[in-house]
Amino acid sequence: MAKRKVNIKDVAARAEVHPSTVSRVMNPETRSMVSERVAERVTRIAGEMGYTRSPLASGLRTGRSFTIGVIIPDLSNPMFPPIVRGIERTLEAEGYIAILADSDNSQKSERAIFDSMKSRRIDGLILATAHIEDPIVEDCIEEQLPVVLVNRTIDTHDVSEVINNDELGIQLAVSHLIELGHKQIAFLGGPQNTSTGRDRYRAFRNLADNGQFELDPDLCASCTAFTEAAGHTSMLGILDCNKPFSAVVAANDLLALGCYDALEERGVSCPRDVSVTGFNNMPFVDRFSPPLTSLHIPHDELGVRAANLLLAEIRNSDAPRTTIRLDPVLVVRGSTAAPGQAS
Amino acid sequence: MAKRKVNIKDVAARAEVHPSTVSRVMNPETRSMVSERVAERVTRIAGEMGYTRSPLASGLRTGRSFTIGVIIPDLSNPMFPPIVRGIERTLEAEGYIAILADSDNSQKSERAIFDSMKSRRIDGLILATAHIEDPIVEDCIEEQLPVVLVNRTIDTHDVSEVINNDELGIQLAVSHLIELGHKQIAFLGGPQNTSTGRDRYRAFRNLADNGQFELDPDLCASCTAFTEAAGHTSMLGILDCNKPFSAVVAANDLLALGCYDALEERGVSCPRDVSVTGFNNMPFVDRFSPPLTSLHIPHDELGVRAANLLLAEIRNSDAPRTTIRLDPVLVVRGSTAAPGQAS
Repeated sequence: MAKRKVNIKDVAARAEVHPSTVSRVMNPETRSMVSERVAERVTRIAGEMGYTRSPLASGLRTGRSFTIGVIIPDLSNPMFPPIVRGIERTLEAEGYIAILADSDNSQKSERAIFDSMKSRRIDGLILATAHIEDPIVEDCIEEQLPVVLVNRTIDTHDVSEVINNDELGIQLAVSHLIELGHKQIAFLGGPQNTSTGRDRYRAFRNLADNGQFELDPDLCASCTAFTEAAGHTSMLGILDCNKPFSAVVAANDLLALGCYDALEERGVSCPRDVSVTGFNNMPFVDRFSPPLTSLHIPHDELGVRAANLLLAEIRNSDAPRTTIRLDPVLVVRGSTAAPGQAS
Repeated sequence: MAKRKVNIKDVAARAEVHPSTVSRVMNPETRSMVSERVAERVTRIAGEMGYTRSPLASGLRTGRSFTIGVIIPDLSNPMFPPIVRGIERTLEAEGYIAILADSDNSQKSERAIFDSMKSRRIDGLILATAHIEDPIVEDCIEEQLPVVLVNRTIDTHDVSEVINNDELGIQLAVSHLIELGHKQIAFLGGPQNTSTGRDRYRAFRNLADNGQFELDPDLCASCTAFTEAAGHTSMLGILDCNKPFSAVVAANDLLALGCYDALEERGVSCPRDVSVTGFNNMPFVDRFSPPLTSLHIPHDELGVRAANLLLAEIRNSDAPRTTIRLDPVLVVRGSTAAPGQAS
């Protein structure tokens, strides 16, 4: 037999206050309306009685579900779990919960997930899958559903976002390689319909245009996805051109791992024959063989900041749209060395 | 201005059938009640018109939310994302969506997540966090909420579960080390209030009791969590005993990585001085330095099977409780070698 759950009236009776006072105290958004002394007593008594606020019950009054959709392109990329944890921790502290879905890098799957989330009346969406032109973002704007982008941005609309300074990241990687003495540098890029794919490639070309090094188009590839498999395939394509190069800048760490595999298959040693840099400094890159030189991004902070931007927009739809751009930091490891030298 | 959404009546009118027929076709559980010819026509027309079924709208009639809670102990353990993907894919195909939460190995956090999920009226729960005595499982049974365990089991109740044959896994690891010539084998165990922690340690002790090797209690540790940090701390404790050993069986891959760190700190080379085995064969173990010998588990299949067991129980609360136990397979890599030899 199920125990009867403690309800708001039980807590109000014990605390000798009106139920609406309990309601205000238990809701982080209205707690400040109640004196600190009363709020503390109610919180303590609610805790003793095992009362927890039902976001859905208050949602029936406010029209909110206290549920946030989060769409991630690839949960098996170790970069994303810390972002998700930052999002979840921030939302939970405010009584919200995340519906998380992994789109497996498929735009078709993103659409199905988004429709399913909307039918559950999410209060907002955090999107890590954005494409430069993104129909899901368009829908959110049209339907006035608060949306925040994380990691990737779009061209067409003004939405809040927490992204990385991709240009600076590529500058740091290329400068590091040039300082080591590399002259022929290959580029393993991401999908060109994502901002991270396009902007990192653009930054690489700009550095060549500015005379930092000589760019050879045969040594530049755009992978079909940010995955090890796609990086492997495209790197084999570059190797098949039989052009000399001594370093590869990969647009993310999974592409760099695919590059490792292609080099190994062809008997090319990293870093003795070819140096490799990644992007994201995802968990475990320090343990790979060789440990990967990469661009550090504070993953947890990306998630926390995105969640806070979204909560601000949910509470006030007129909140200004904000772009937070974080500067990556180069972390040098064993995958980069002077040409022709072991690290 | 928001476009009016295509509704079930629009599809019925175009397909020249009754709206209840459209409803039956669009629901995977009732589609077989309609002739294949009609079902195909309705599906095609619904697709052309951009109609999608609202699980919540049908939930209002059936009392279902078509939402499933999934609680994972640590999403940054690369073992879990493929399990989650298997769960999500299976649920989505049946019109369900997962609310996923990461408890960060905290039972307090599990309780808060569970309460939050219940307030959203989940139809069922998949739990990867089970403790041998688990109050959340007790609550599910008391409240008749369908629950399926994945990876870890409990002692107290008969619930459906998809778990690994932990005993066989430890046997395979120990036999491999004995065949290589190891005689003094240390054990880096998991938390003893989880089935994976307890049963893997029990299997290790049983092999010693059966005369396979001599067990030294000073060479056995139970870590406080299945994390790199806990493995590192406990391995330093074993090293501080200054007893001879030439191999370590770790109860999972993250503990094995913590073991790598402790060995390196003390100048002990793996596998030359000490061989190490892990458990789970999580993504990326083949890329570590040295690549980790581990026990392969079909992660995606664990997720798919758990989701299917849960869906069966949601549809029929009298469905028999089922235990699916998968046999792990040893994958030998560079972290294990004969004592005193490089691999």
